[in-house]
Amino acid sequence: MGQELEKSPLAPAEFPDMRSVRGVSLTTGATGMKYKGRDDVLVVELAEGTTVAGMLTQSKTSSAPVDWCRKHLSAGEARGLIVNAGNANAFTGAAGNEAVEKCVQAVADQLACRPSRIFAASTGVIGEPLPYDMIIDVLPDAFAGVQGSDAASWQRAAEAIRTTDTFAKGATATAQIGGTEVAISGIVKGSGMIAPDMATMLSFIFTDAKIPADVLSELTRAGVEKSYNAITVDSDTSTSDTVLVFATGSADGQIEITGTDDPGLEDFINKLNTVMLDLAHQVVRDGEGASKFISVCVMGAEDDVAARTIARAIANSPLVKTAIAGNDANWGRIVMAIGKSGEAADRDRLAIQIGGIDVARNGAVVPEYDETPVAEHVRGQDVDIAVHVGVGSGEATVWTCDLTHGYISINAEYRS
Amino acid sequence: MGQELEKSPLAPAEFPDMRSVRGVSLTTGATGMKYKGRDDVLVVELAEGTTVAGMLTQSKTSSAPVDWCRKHLSAGEARGLIVNAGNANAFTGAAGNEAVEKCVQAVADQLACRPSRIFAASTGVIGEPLPYDMIIDVLPDAFAGVQGSDAASWQRAAEAIRTTDTFAKGATATAQIGGTEVAISGIVKGSGMIAPDMATMLSFIFTDAKIPADVLSELTRAGVEKSYNAITVDSDTSTSDTVLVFATGSADGQIEITGTDDPGLEDFINKLNTVMLDLAHQVVRDGEGASKFISVCVMGAEDDVAARTIARAIANSPLVKTAIAGNDANWGRIVMAIGKSGEAADRDRLAIQIGGIDVARNGAVVPEYDETPVAEHVRGQDVDIAVHVGVGSGEATVWTCDLTHGYISINAEYRS
Repeated sequence: MGQELEKSPLAPAEFPDMRSVRGVSLTTGATGMKYKGRDDVLVVELAEGTTVAGMLTQSKTSSAPVDWCRKHLSAGEARGLIVNAGNANAFTGAAGNEAVEKCVQAVADQLACRPSRIFAASTGVIGEPLPYDMIIDVLPDAFAGVQGSDAASWQRAAEAIRTTDTFAKGATATAQIGGTEVAISGIVKGSGMIAPDMATMLSFIFTDAKIPADVLSELTRAGVEKSYNAITVDSDTSTSDTVLVFATGSADGQIEITGTDDPGLEDFINKLNTVMLDLAHQVVRDGEGASKFISVCVMGAEDDVAARTIARAIANSPLVKTAIAGNDANWGRIVMAIGKSGEAADRDRLAIQIGGIDVARNGAVVPEYDETPVAEHVRGQDVDIAVHVGVGSGEATVWTCDLTHGYISINAEYRS
Repeated sequence: MGQELEKSPLAPAEFPDMRSVRGVSLTTGATGMKYKGRDDVLVVELAEGTTVAGMLTQSKTSSAPVDWCRKHLSAGEARGLIVNAGNANAFTGAAGNEAVEKCVQAVADQLACRPSRIFAASTGVIGEPLPYDMIIDVLPDAFAGVQGSDAASWQRAAEAIRTTDTFAKGATATAQIGGTEVAISGIVKGSGMIAPDMATMLSFIFTDAKIPADVLSELTRAGVEKSYNAITVDSDTSTSDTVLVFATGSADGQIEITGTDDPGLEDFINKLNTVMLDLAHQVVRDGEGASKFISVCVMGAEDDVAARTIARAIANSPLVKTAIAGNDANWGRIVMAIGKSGEAADRDRLAIQIGGIDVARNGAVVPEYDETPVAEHVRGQDVDIAVHVGVGSGEATVWTCDLTHGYISINAEYRS
């Protein structure tokens, strides 16, 4: 990590003006365990009564903090969150569990609550013992600085959890629940090891809406499916993926919510999903070495799951991704990727559009195909691929980036 | 394909001195359809009574010649083979089937046999109509040059089927069947789009042994499983993968073979498998941009299939492959890849060896781990990874190469 990475060309112009979320206090600290001259710890204090829901990596070699979260998410209650960057505390054996316990205990002591109400996440190198003392040492100063969640503190929080990210990532919205305005603000880190099972991606979303834990859990699951689980950078899956959604309930006068089908929730669900999709897209836009943002939309599959599998096969294909990196509208490789997905596709009814332009129809290139406008589209920063596989009505969209020399440089040099 | 690719640093010193196979006549021709100044068509004449077996791509968008082979392999009889490089005749609709029929008919006319006895394979760009006239035009001259299968003709054959291959690939052996010496000589092309389902890999193996088609079929299936199906370059699967094994039966005085368990076949099976594995390894050694040959051996999995899945997850991980490209013994990424495979693994019993040196045991790095000798091993050209996942007795080995800037360069520029 010695090198300073250049900001992704796909990065948004600036970090958004993030809304304050009542009941959320953010603070950061610098342990110096890996990075010099920057914060690497984020601590969040949450109001009494905060509910929590989350989705965690499917990896069979999940990290110690993921195991901790898995154990305590079912209670649905949270008072705090501690995150560190630079060391993933994964594959660290019994010492890894002990390190998590020490950290959450230290936060719980500061907040005078049970350790099980403190959630934890770590990102960085796998397999090195976490020097938890260095984290605990910065907590008193960090807590002394706790001061709500203004725009500047969101940016500091997003900066503190970066690893190979080239820019800090946040998204924010307001939503109406029965006449009450609530805020939703979230941050995410992630740029590599990003795959359908969520990747080395840590994302934390906070709202001051009052949402029962079971409802929050359903909303989180549904939202993650169409956002974080629909992106891929390199098909690799992290040991540490974590999405946590906290609802402090601190907004005044909100109506009671009892289920996900509550009509009062409609705007909130839309805004939550928008924030999640925005954050997920930012991860792709910071994909290691990315020079293009690619949407892959698959229609006509047997069902939505099959459509997702085909879309992922295209989005994960190194040959498709390198072709696009080279400004090459090489749709033959898209055909190849559809073929390898293993899902039903009618070769003789296949249709492909790139940038909205018909490239192939009925299993062959369109008559008098003119590559010029397609090549023009592929030279741009946003590339749209749409495929109809001709067997049913399943649909899915997956987002990814291209595969460039930058990816190799970053990953052949990380940790050295 | 304008650029001339540099020979892979992993290439064997020279093309082997290939054994002549009785009943096999090789000839090549140059159509000029894509490449200038080189042969791009291979035609093989096979003795009457030749049996054939094969394995074809699992792709749902298989090429027209693959469809042709699939249709005619069941008869188990062959008189000829025609192969062209530069155009895959895949995703070419009804015109693709017609192109195959025209080509095999032209060869059948020369050999005075039924078209169904002629096998065909194409490799190259997907989605462009095959200008079959250009192939048919070179056949008379090619057949005029037919002259058995001496060493030089094997090399010409291997050269003629290359696309992005940086070296011609062949392997050869003799085997004893009941006191009769038989020859086995095979060629292969392939360097990218190489994945478990066999890749843009064309391989043709010829023997003058007399083997009934059903026996040959079983031997082929078993051999392919542990060779061509155990290699991966980039996880992509071609529309055109083809392995065909032809047995001319032209060796004199061979005993009759009735089944795969015939004790007289033991040496032949060993040698056939050796030739297949040699050819498969050469494909990896010519992996696009490869600078290292990597063996991934997984033990202790639930069963052999699970072991294979885990080994492939490691071998296909871009993060593992880029780390090795960067001479980085980053075993944390191996842990990540095991985790994402989805197969059972006991995180707390995981063990990893690199270059035969213990790196991790019981789910954590070994005490006082010294990276020096491991880093030394990873800097070499051959990298051995062994993993024990601690749940059963399943085993598998998969071979791959590293992921370098060379892969990106080749694939971002192909077709341009």
